[in-house]
Amino acid sequence: MVKIAVMGYGTIGSGVVEVIDINGGRIAQNAGQEVQVKYILDLKDFPDDPHHDLFVKDIEEILNDDEVKVVVETMGGVEPAHTFVKRCLEAGKSVTTSNKALVAKHGAELLAIAKEKNINFLFEASVGGGIPIIRALTSSLTADEIEEITGILNGTTNYILTKMDVEGSRFEDVLKEAQELGYAEANPTDDVEGYDACRKIAILTSLISGKTVDFEEIYTEGITGVKPEDMKYAAAMGRTIKLLATSRKTDAGYSAMVAPFMLDSEHPLYNVHGVFNAVFVHGNVLDDAMFYGRGAGKLPTASAVVADVVDIVKNLDNNTGITFTADRLALPDVSSVKNTFFVRIEGDGEAAKKAFNVAQTVTVPGISGEVGIVTEPVTEGEFKAAVEGLDGVISSYRLA
Amino acid sequence: MVKIAVMGYGTIGSGVVEVIDINGGRIAQNAGQEVQVKYILDLKDFPDDPHHDLFVKDIEEILNDDEVKVVVETMGGVEPAHTFVKRCLEAGKSVTTSNKALVAKHGAELLAIAKEKNINFLFEASVGGGIPIIRALTSSLTADEIEEITGILNGTTNYILTKMDVEGSRFEDVLKEAQELGYAEANPTDDVEGYDACRKIAILTSLISGKTVDFEEIYTEGITGVKPEDMKYAAAMGRTIKLLATSRKTDAGYSAMVAPFMLDSEHPLYNVHGVFNAVFVHGNVLDDAMFYGRGAGKLPTASAVVADVVDIVKNLDNNTGITFTADRLALPDVSSVKNTFFVRIEGDGEAAKKAFNVAQTVTVPGISGEVGIVTEPVTEGEFKAAVEGLDGVISSYRLA
Repeated sequence: MVKIAVMGYGTIGSGVVEVIDINGGRIAQNAGQEVQVKYILDLKDFPDDPHHDLFVKDIEEILNDDEVKVVVETMGGVEPAHTFVKRCLEAGKSVTTSNKALVAKHGAELLAIAKEKNINFLFEASVGGGIPIIRALTSSLTADEIEEITGILNGTTNYILTKMDVEGSRFEDVLKEAQELGYAEANPTDDVEGYDACRKIAILTSLISGKTVDFEEIYTEGITGVKPEDMKYAAAMGRTIKLLATSRKTDAGYSAMVAPFMLDSEHPLYNVHGVFNAVFVHGNVLDDAMFYGRGAGKLPTASAVVADVVDIVKNLDNNTGITFTADRLALPDVSSVKNTFFVRIEGDGEAAKKAFNVAQTVTVPGISGEVGIVTEPVTEGEFKAAVEGLDGVISSYRLA
Repeated sequence: MVKIAVMGYGTIGSGVVEVIDINGGRIAQNAGQEVQVKYILDLKDFPDDPHHDLFVKDIEEILNDDEVKVVVETMGGVEPAHTFVKRCLEAGKSVTTSNKALVAKHGAELLAIAKEKNINFLFEASVGGGIPIIRALTSSLTADEIEEITGILNGTTNYILTKMDVEGSRFEDVLKEAQELGYAEANPTDDVEGYDACRKIAILTSLISGKTVDFEEIYTEGITGVKPEDMKYAAAMGRTIKLLATSRKTDAGYSAMVAPFMLDSEHPLYNVHGVFNAVFVHGNVLDDAMFYGRGAGKLPTASAVVADVVDIVKNLDNNTGITFTADRLALPDVSSVKNTFFVRIEGDGEAAKKAFNVAQTVTVPGISGEVGIVTEPVTEGEFKAAVEGLDGVISSYRLA
């Protein structure tokens, strides 16, 4: 039997305990031995919880108990999670975390400690919730050069955009509804500004490149500016708007970006609706693959955390080699990246047609005094310069 | 450096050698050491092949070379593959195979030998080609009770059905075209009769249940009877016809079946077109997940084989615990399984409406003298008995 500790008894942490309660037999079968929760660390009191006797308030109790071999970190946020996880690893306890902020900021350091101690630091649930994308990259797609990873990595924004597409609603109204349903936080900034997706694509890019991607260097646009009219233009082209987090291998290295894209109906991520997440991967020999599932939610995310626990228990004194170093991966300047753009512009669009090589003009019944145009592929830098020289640009999107 | 042997230099075997040629650096990085092909076993001669000096015709050369730690079996068919793989494992060499016939028939025996020798017998490429579904089930979804696996597991039939749907073509014509394009074998029986998909769902069900599923016990229907008119009825209901291989946990155990189903447009597998494969998984805590990619093809399949080689090299003297036993899994009698059916019947359908609880009647413009009906859920046994009592039944499909 392996004893574990759970740090942080919020949605995911309590989900982890629940999954072990529900599926203990199956988990023991897969891990080779029973997994038992010995401590739950939380500053709050849970007197009515069935596991109330497991609660502790002091991390020292966990650190000093040699019987605890595995620690689950589900506190969220960078501190004190970082300090606690580091101390656990230094004490020889393997750790799994669902905390993308922690992994994006301190992943390399924590992976290095785990490697040195010949234990494991795993973080399947930090990207894509229940979708096993990290293990796919680190254990399955190991014969490939990964040339592209593009994901819908944030369920809140995908829910909002799906609703806007289907119902023609305004961003503000759907956000309010999502908050009432618990699909969006009271402070939705991390989700709607793309910061959450940005940390996740930084983690995935770090894993495929082997070096740390500084998430603050990734060009990131959110969805707060998406208007119902934009969605109508997308629909007129047989497209929809999705927040994509993408990383592509170029001659200059991995080029990463988070932004709302207009996807055509043949795009593998076009049919990913509502709170679901999906990750598209292109390998140089694998060709296209896609992984789809619940990117958030108590039990699906806890399922991924507990799968990490199983992996750790099967490798208690064996670092399984998942790693990226603290070396910073140099990201190519985004201005040199080529994209195809859609632009809404006031008037008849004649000026835009002079500024760009225009591939297509789009009009939407009921929307007058403006047109939409689609450019031929152009670098981000050239596009930005051209837009700055134009009057009356209402909005613009990249196409995918 | 690890030396490997490749047995069988057909499409997949030569793909394996090519993947190692192309991505050797990446593979070495992931495996922790270089992987080098030392022997290629094939009865044919390949004098112009760049690796012509590696060819041998006698398995003894591989068996007697202690330097060979890993053997790739890409010969196909049950014999002599079974004998060769068994002897390799008994000689202490780990094996990976792309051979579903071998795994479906002798998987438990070969897994047991690997376990006893503390080496590995892996078969990621035997199901879903490049889609890492086996490792997802054995290494990622380990905290779940898997309640359903449903897949489009055969690219040939999915290509044919997609063409029939999009172009309204006849089965015979599209099959001929698929054969000319190399998407279907000269003898297409295994694909179009569902036998290939049957072996694959047997393997997946064995993995999630831990016991051997006898593929001959799985109810299997192919797609040779699918008519353009059936596809038109499906379209009239907003559906399409796909060959599904499915396994669901019931009170009586895993119920498995291969048959053409009419899928509605919200089904996660509805948008899987052409030669692509996909596997839908429902776990009791994970909820829904889906894995999508190229289910066949030289390099995608070889990518999965070489990923197994990487996994084996990382665990040269460590059985990673993937197993199912030789105990036969008892499958519930298919006649007790409930499904919703679509039935095409001559005349006005009044007799059918008496025989079934009818949920919906469907007509297709241009098709006269018959109607389509959709039943309420009914057991397979009751459905079969009712159909036998009816005159003029043209075709029937299960709905999904």
